[in-house]
Amino acid sequence: MTDEEHSKSGDEHTVFIGSKPFMNYVTGVVMQFTTQGANEVMIKGRGKFITRCVDVAEVASKRFLTDQIEVADVKLDSEAFKNKEGRDIRVSTIEIMLKRK
Amino acid sequence: MTDEEHSKSGDEHTVFIGSKPFMNYVTGVVMQFTTQGANEVMIKGRGKFITRCVDVAEVASKRFLTDQIEVADVKLDSEAFKNKEGRDIRVSTIEIMLKRK
Repeated sequence: MTDEEHSKSGDEHTVFIGSKPFMNYVTGVVMQFTTQGANEVMIKGRGKFITRCVDVAEVASKRFLTDQIEVADVKLDSEAFKNKEGRDIRVSTIEIMLKRK
Repeated sequence: MTDEEHSKSGDEHTVFIGSKPFMNYVTGVVMQFTTQGANEVMIKGRGKFITRCVDVAEVASKRFLTDQIEVADVKLDSEAFKNKEGRDIRVSTIEIMLKRK
């Protein structure tokens, strides 16, 4: 994984969701908890990847780490910027915090 | 709107997000607050419509009812069922609670 997709700063374990195969992200999240001993993992994504963020969180917490982790917090936001044509564009973002129970 | 997409039970104002034009849903949410006097509106969706739920919540709260409503709570879940071929399928769901500030 590149730094952009899988970064750590101190205790913060973060997985950015993009267009790689779905299970890459699930495995990434699960391994942060299992082999890297994280107590919290943040899943972040924007735009069309938001559904995928929720899917990753659900599959990691309900199928792989059943009864071990849970969704502790969900933050929604949006970023506004101008596109090449100068039009105002808004993109929604999501941050899902998974926590060890 | 049909009952399925726009239901009320007591105080609960709920908008189900589907494949109609995006602004239908934004208008639906905004009108619950403005003309119907709701203090809370729930946005619900599943699967590929999850991104759209977040978009509707963001546009309603940041562009239309700026500083008047906010995202009070977000719940993620998933529903498991068998498809026609008998395979286990999981679909993620989201519930976004918007509240008057």
